[in-house]
Amino acid sequence: MPVVAVIGDGQLARMMQTAAIELGLAPRVLAADDNASAAQVFGDVRIGDYRDLADLQAIAEGADAVTFDHEHVPNEYAHMLIDAGINVEPRPHALLYAQDKLEQRARLTELGAPVPPFSPIASAKDASDFFERVGGRVCLKSRRGGYDGHGVWFPDSLEAFTELVEKLVGEGVELYAEEKVPFVRELSAMVARNRSGEVKAWPVVESRQADGVCRVAISPAPGLDAERAAACQGFAVKIAEALDVTGVLAVELFETADAVLVNELAMRPHNTGHWTQDGCVTSQFEQHLRAVIDWPLGSTEPTAPYTVMVNTLGGDSDPAVPMRERVAAVMKKYPEAKVHLYGKGYRPGRKMGHVNVADESLERALDVAEDAAHYIINAQWR
Amino acid sequence: MPVVAVIGDGQLARMMQTAAIELGLAPRVLAADDNASAAQVFGDVRIGDYRDLADLQAIAEGADAVTFDHEHVPNEYAHMLIDAGINVEPRPHALLYAQDKLEQRARLTELGAPVPPFSPIASAKDASDFFERVGGRVCLKSRRGGYDGHGVWFPDSLEAFTELVEKLVGEGVELYAEEKVPFVRELSAMVARNRSGEVKAWPVVESRQADGVCRVAISPAPGLDAERAAACQGFAVKIAEALDVTGVLAVELFETADAVLVNELAMRPHNTGHWTQDGCVTSQFEQHLRAVIDWPLGSTEPTAPYTVMVNTLGGDSDPAVPMRERVAAVMKKYPEAKVHLYGKGYRPGRKMGHVNVADESLERALDVAEDAAHYIINAQWR
Ligand SMILES: Nc1ncnc2c1ncn2[C@@H]1O[C@H](COP(=O)(O)OP(=O)(O)OP(=O)(O)O)[C@@H](O)[C@H]1O
Ligand SMILES: Nc1ncnc2c1ncn2[C@@H]1O[C@H](COP(=O)(O)OP(=O)(O)OP(=O)(O)O)[C@@H](O)[C@H]1O
Ligand SMILES: [Mg+2]
Ligand SMILES: [Mg+2]
Repeated sequence: MPVVAVIGDGQLARMMQTAAIELGLAPRVLAADDNASAAQVFGDVRIGDYRDLADLQAIAEGADAVTFDHEHVPNEYAHMLIDAGINVEPRPHALLYAQDKLEQRARLTELGAPVPPFSPIASAKDASDFFERVGGRVCLKSRRGGYDGHGVWFPDSLEAFTELVEKLVGEGVELYAEEKVPFVRELSAMVARNRSGEVKAWPVVESRQADGVCRVAISPAPGLDAERAAACQGFAVKIAEALDVTGVLAVELFETADAVLVNELAMRPHNTGHWTQDGCVTSQFEQHLRAVIDWPLGSTEPTAPYTVMVNTLGGDSDPAVPMRERVAAVMKKYPEAKVHLYGKGYRPGRKMGHVNVADESLERALDVAEDAAHYIINAQWR
Repeated sequence: MPVVAVIGDGQLARMMQTAAIELGLAPRVLAADDNASAAQVFGDVRIGDYRDLADLQAIAEGADAVTFDHEHVPNEYAHMLIDAGINVEPRPHALLYAQDKLEQRARLTELGAPVPPFSPIASAKDASDFFERVGGRVCLKSRRGGYDGHGVWFPDSLEAFTELVEKLVGEGVELYAEEKVPFVRELSAMVARNRSGEVKAWPVVESRQADGVCRVAISPAPGLDAERAAACQGFAVKIAEALDVTGVLAVELFETADAVLVNELAMRPHNTGHWTQDGCVTSQFEQHLRAVIDWPLGSTEPTAPYTVMVNTLGGDSDPAVPMRERVAAVMKKYPEAKVHLYGKGYRPGRKMGHVNVADESLERALDVAEDAAHYIINAQWR
């Protein structure tokens, strides 16, 4: 059976492992240390560094596919693996657009996907020009390496903006700015594509962030106009094809009063796709594996009218009640709640797990998932 | 988080691992060798022998619960672990009734559960007495160690019966006989119970055997009278409580023209419960883990009107088409089919995996699951 090598040791790799076991695949993981989320649960763990070519070569040896749980593997190394005959999925020529947000913006523009006005920013002059162009509604981003809101800033005056730019440029951070979009809500359109070119889309979901971090996902996005939903799926399919993406592609979107704009792309399972584990015929983790080994894709039909996912993000402090007791309390109150935990120790704001709830009633699903997640975080009901 | 030690290295342990990962538990397995189905996928694998006390003590050390994927751990060792303060679930005083079918029959009779006429058989004289008593409709069984139809015989004449008895008694096999039940079909009533006494029942399923091996399970059992279904669930709950079972209990049943009789008990996840992985809010593997660590049980609501499971049992020969290509062909034809594989090499009749299909239409679910399983076995459509 196919050997799949996963580079990256976080919860996304961990959840690929459960899917890989059921499919009968032979999975292995490259992890930084034995205690990493994914390293705890894989049978075949290789300790190493994803920025080290020798470590990458070692994990890739004999693998049918090499894939990732993050976008940070140096592109030149991915190319070297491919040159050595390794099947790296997604390929670096696609991954590039998930690694560099400015390249992404430029490419999306070429593809005719709707994006906010944007511009590279390298100086105070660039900053003041852009500030004027967008009437002061500025979102500054680092081109590379951002995640969970790190690398995203909203300066609220020209002074704050130029100061920030000067400071960051001084630190060597490559920047660009885009309009701060007055969105009504955020959406996520997820698809998967395999090497043979088959593409399948999941329902478009609503995603709610707190401090730049995804906190809630609701499938399908409540009240989303069917035409607009189809348009979002259409963008995602088009982007997957145009960029030659393999595996899961998440297209994060802003819904404004009268349009939809693309925020950013991720080429891996995505937080807004966790609901698929308990609300869909094929989970994003299974689909990603199928896609990267070029197996046909599974049905993306939901199994319930609504599925809500709420992240359990480390709270302000770690409650005295042990996690095992918090989980038991949630299971007692909500037999329908699906608790997923990543084996991570407490840190404020850290993604430690999530709760999925499927229901006919959106209100009830949201209520149960929010209350359950709140208890896991705080050892207190809402 | 709780440490769960699983004794036994087959597919049942393997599928506990996927559930354990998502729950954030710390699972470990005692396996005979590195290549065993479960040993391939656990992060923490201890090689050893479940009939060796030292190996059992080593795997139990520091575990919150010790559980099993088979019934063959010597009962005196389980008692010794308990005496040493280890939480063994199910407990040996319950497991006894899944280990010895004659004890089981006697206990079920005491509990008022309906069973066929039965009798211990130790001699040709016993055989001819019993043969007469049941009008020649005889099923002979070994008391211990049977599985998948091994240890079950249907002699069709008095001569064949007495000859078989003499041969087996000569080999030291302990026997009993029961009436060969003219059943219309077989059913399975599954429940889970935790140490605190909470019990939850799944829908009653129809199970179809071939050569004594479960081949198909259909949830819920088509056309089963609601009253009879409730009675079956009632037996299972009562047995779980009376025997102090912890974890999953499967009650195999015979449905005759006008009644239901208990065939046998299993105290672990069961082949007729595999459908829950893709057709139920809580899978039997998750539920078993929750039960043995005394966490509250999950909802047993189905997520689809029908779910059909078909085993992929090794065929008469191993097709030249590699398994990976067979799986890909099935995925292509049936995006809705959920393929589960156990990492086992080919052997005729061997349980190598199963396919689940959930659908509104029973006919379609059955059709797809049968065709998909047939292809995985034979590399040919039905
Ligand atoms: N142009 C914008 N206008 C308004 N809000 C924005 C804009 N860009 C980003 N945001 C907000 O900040 C959040 C994080 O931004 P973005 O997705 O670019 O960053 P990230 O750090 O890569 O996050 P992720 O965790 O999704 O990888 C967005 O989900 C959105 O809430
Ligand atoms: N008394 C009986 N009358 C008619 N058929 C029977 C009888 N007992 C067993 N069978 C048939 O043989 C099959 C296997 O019997 P049983 O369940 O006792 O054996 P087993 O080897 O323990 O099987 P497993 O553990 O795999 O379920 C039953 O599912 C049924 O089809
Ligand atoms: Mg984002
Ligand atoms: Mg049986």
